[in-house]
Amino acid sequence: MQPTSTKLITRWAYAEPTQVEDELVVEEPLEVRVGQESLIVVMRTPGHDFELATGFLYTESLITSCDDIEIIAYCDEEVSETESTGFSSLENIVNVRLTEELDLETQSGWQRNFHANASCGLCGKMTIESVKHQVPPLNSGLHVNQAVFYHLNDRLRTAQSVFERTGGLHAAGLFDETGELLIVREDIGRHNAVDKVIGHALLADLLPLDRHILMVSGRASFEIVQKALFARIPIVVAVSAASTLAVDLAQEGNLTLVGFMRGKSMAVYSCPERVCSNSI
Amino acid sequence: MQPTSTKLITRWAYAEPTQVEDELVVEEPLEVRVGQESLIVVMRTPGHDFELATGFLYTESLITSCDDIEIIAYCDEEVSETESTGFSSLENIVNVRLTEELDLETQSGWQRNFHANASCGLCGKMTIESVKHQVPPLNSGLHVNQAVFYHLNDRLRTAQSVFERTGGLHAAGLFDETGELLIVREDIGRHNAVDKVIGHALLADLLPLDRHILMVSGRASFEIVQKALFARIPIVVAVSAASTLAVDLAQEGNLTLVGFMRGKSMAVYSCPERVCSNSI
Repeated sequence: MQPTSTKLITRWAYAEPTQVEDELVVEEPLEVRVGQESLIVVMRTPGHDFELATGFLYTESLITSCDDIEIIAYCDEEVSETESTGFSSLENIVNVRLTEELDLETQSGWQRNFHANASCGLCGKMTIESVKHQVPPLNSGLHVNQAVFYHLNDRLRTAQSVFERTGGLHAAGLFDETGELLIVREDIGRHNAVDKVIGHALLADLLPLDRHILMVSGRASFEIVQKALFARIPIVVAVSAASTLAVDLAQEGNLTLVGFMRGKSMAVYSCPERVCSNSI
Repeated sequence: MQPTSTKLITRWAYAEPTQVEDELVVEEPLEVRVGQESLIVVMRTPGHDFELATGFLYTESLITSCDDIEIIAYCDEEVSETESTGFSSLENIVNVRLTEELDLETQSGWQRNFHANASCGLCGKMTIESVKHQVPPLNSGLHVNQAVFYHLNDRLRTAQSVFERTGGLHAAGLFDETGELLIVREDIGRHNAVDKVIGHALLADLLPLDRHILMVSGRASFEIVQKALFARIPIVVAVSAASTLAVDLAQEGNLTLVGFMRGKSMAVYSCPERVCSNSI
């Protein structure tokens, strides 16, 4: 499946309707099955589905390393009951076999079988106290010169191939401490883009990412910070605003959270000591 | 609780860090209980919580009218187990008592007890085929002059009190067919803002909204269109892009979906016949 699709639409501009071909971002459900059982349905943009499944399992604390995964593959059997929905079942179902059976009953507050929309990455919790995972605070001694931050946004935008065409995708980029872009992933869901980046890093055995910077194209929510903490990323940069809960969790986890990253201006919400000025 | 909160942050602008007070949008978990049992946790911006709970129950097809709700109230008992999380339990738990007991087992594909992040409004499904609700197509004969569309965005932005200060909120606005703004709701989650609008309309006995226009400040996803179909809203307008699945569902449901609503330009993805030009 392609991440974009062309549709005939009506464009109104200054009182004149015209029929034009438009490129839209694809949104399709991905069902993740673990040990033949349905675990979650995520609304996502097709592409890098194994990374998405891996990143989700990791940042939901259901696996602790890529060694926990024995096989990950698309469903190769006909699944008749999904045919009525018009969704292709074969490319929308990922089967994961773990080396040890996953016992969801022992996962505090976790419920098997749930659906997540495109922006979701933290579903399946039943009560408020199960929303927060226990992640130890970061102790990364990373310091990054302010000048490095100024280039992140341009580099992420340049690498965002689909967004430029559709305007409809979130991006997440992983940078090294010199500001070099290592991985970029796009998805209609902001959390999916982050899960794909972390899933890629996990499958490539790059964790912990304690000398790295994660940049997201939108806002910084609680879940984005929680996912970064799981991957031990010490600096998270967002193009837009951060929420109170994101800032609280970043402070608690000793993570540097930056928002409103635009040109040479940024808002550092927590642990500003990791950002150093030219004169230091 | 207030929708925004002030924090001391470090602002870097042109190589000079300064400490400033910044206003952030509040993100807190809301647990919705039905008949004393936890149904969902939504990450949301506090405010209009009863509308949010009502709109969620309605657009998830768990209630069919506001008559199904006997009592809706904040939890008034101490809930000791949530104290460790630092979240105030009293203002973050809404109890709903229905006139008839809700039997979730009979809801196709629905799972009790799940968590939704700030952008979520459709969680709890276990398989792909349960993502789509069965909603009959619209038969609204509404026609709206193109000129009405050109003002929606400005009117929504003017009414968005919190966004102007924090840059961190989505808005949803309900307009009548002349373009008059009737309700506006803001939330860190795009689906929550829509649920609050629909919940308000339901509680005020305004449904079906078949002479109305719903405008959202961000993108149009599958779930936004599905929620609009539930409330029988014939026209949905988004500031940004629409996904393929949103367009497919809009076409199927005979709903007019408009994206990239900017100035006097817009992209009409489905049912363009509801938009009429000046000369008609």
